[in-house]
Amino acid sequence: MGEAENPEQVDDHPFDAAIALKPADTGDETYTGRTHPAYANMVGPYGGITAATLLEAVQRHPERLGVPVSLTVNYAGPVADGEFTVSARPARTNRSTQHWSLDLTQDGRVVTTATAVYAVRRDTWADTETAMPDVPAPEAAPVTPMPDYVEWAKNYEMRFVEGAVPELEGAAESGPGESPDSTTTLWVRDNPTRPLDFPALTSLCDVFYPRVFLRRGQAMPAGTVSLTIYFHADDDALAAQGSRPVLARARSNRFGHGYFDQSACLWGADGDLLATTHQLVYFKG
Amino acid sequence: MGEAENPEQVDDHPFDAAIALKPADTGDETYTGRTHPAYANMVGPYGGITAATLLEAVQRHPERLGVPVSLTVNYAGPVADGEFTVSARPARTNRSTQHWSLDLTQDGRVVTTATAVYAVRRDTWADTETAMPDVPAPEAAPVTPMPDYVEWAKNYEMRFVEGAVPELEGAAESGPGESPDSTTTLWVRDNPTRPLDFPALTSLCDVFYPRVFLRRGQAMPAGTVSLTIYFHADDDALAAQGSRPVLARARSNRFGHGYFDQSACLWGADGDLLATTHQLVYFKG
Repeated sequence: MGEAENPEQVDDHPFDAAIALKPADTGDETYTGRTHPAYANMVGPYGGITAATLLEAVQRHPERLGVPVSLTVNYAGPVADGEFTVSARPARTNRSTQHWSLDLTQDGRVVTTATAVYAVRRDTWADTETAMPDVPAPEAAPVTPMPDYVEWAKNYEMRFVEGAVPELEGAAESGPGESPDSTTTLWVRDNPTRPLDFPALTSLCDVFYPRVFLRRGQAMPAGTVSLTIYFHADDDALAAQGSRPVLARARSNRFGHGYFDQSACLWGADGDLLATTHQLVYFKG
Repeated sequence: MGEAENPEQVDDHPFDAAIALKPADTGDETYTGRTHPAYANMVGPYGGITAATLLEAVQRHPERLGVPVSLTVNYAGPVADGEFTVSARPARTNRSTQHWSLDLTQDGRVVTTATAVYAVRRDTWADTETAMPDVPAPEAAPVTPMPDYVEWAKNYEMRFVEGAVPELEGAAESGPGESPDSTTTLWVRDNPTRPLDFPALTSLCDVFYPRVFLRRGQAMPAGTVSLTIYFHADDDALAAQGSRPVLARARSNRFGHGYFDQSACLWGADGDLLATTHQLVYFKG
């Protein structure tokens, strides 16, 4: 599917096909979905699409109140290719907030757990302390594809400003491939383009390749075990963003004993901080 | 209870009394606890003690594997004074990781939900990118108590290096009380002192007063809705830290539409990054 076909038509977009859920026969808190080959990763699907699918279960739930403000997804095991079940239970509904407990199962076994907080937003004092960094415009940064075998990455137009994927082929165990800083900054959006909504923003929050690859200048087994997103954007901010690129920057604080953390900011094209997101990542090496 | 009595005796410490759980009659995945007046906050207990109590349910669970690497706590409603029930279910146990689903209920109603990831740690390449900032030693910073009505804060020895609680009494709606930066840095430890362990570190991760108070120079209704902790410390790092002060620094990225985020680092006395922690906070004003 090329951009020329119909860049703004949501229904035909592979993202929407990938997060599609239908109510299961067993009750209205349970949905059935299916992994989509376009979002395949090394082992199971891209973590961002799984997170987006869990959020989608709340988005379409008849008891949903307001918009997402917080989401945590725990990747307990690999999602196998094929069908899965998503359960979404409102654990508590208050006047203006709602707490959700979610899980994704296959053959009765828990594969992913999640919690989400939804809220009715209202106007208050506002300020952004972490301003968008001063970087070249998207058009000034070339589109850099991920290595061809990273299937899911083909759904994103990535323009790296700093910290692009290191040259993994032929990299020495140590040497010039290593980096003293784990920061990656890129302009990124769906490919083909698609207006930003909460599930798409959720998926974008996991778009960074593992920081340990950048630090060590080489690929190694690595995978997110827990992902948290704080949504700062409301519906108006998403509508204003449309399908323009998002500026995304990620960095780690610490690596050690098999895990590292990562914190990231995603700004809209006008400089709005749309989301902050954090994750803990397993690595071996 | 003063420091002179027995600063290192854990059993008598109010923290241990506050997080104490006993198996409920209903089964071994359910525990009963009780709110402790020493950790009272404005509405219900201090959020850090609730998070520590949830972690304690896993710590003492017979099926626990390894040590905590990630914890997310969602504050769905205020904990009422008195008894509560904590349920801790291992949602999935792998070879070296374990995923937990937790909740705290009162009278059958969900008050708090949580998820935790535990792991067997192993030696790998390690590096800390976010180094401890260059600040005066703990002894050089005076102990500054919180306002007297903040009961829980009396359990912590706080030495603010920057961003102390603004003078709330008599502060103008706007004026010199406001701050352009939400950063607070303090040396902090239990009072009376107590060797650091995972529940105590969990509680410390919520020790920062709301960032919006600092920015606006005034108190207003505010409360954490979701808290995430990434544990970088293992048992050896905790043992090395002992009961010395931890350097804790917090800052917000964005305030708006009734919520703000906060990210924080906690370093041990030797400069080890023990934990990184993030939260989303409701505010009204």
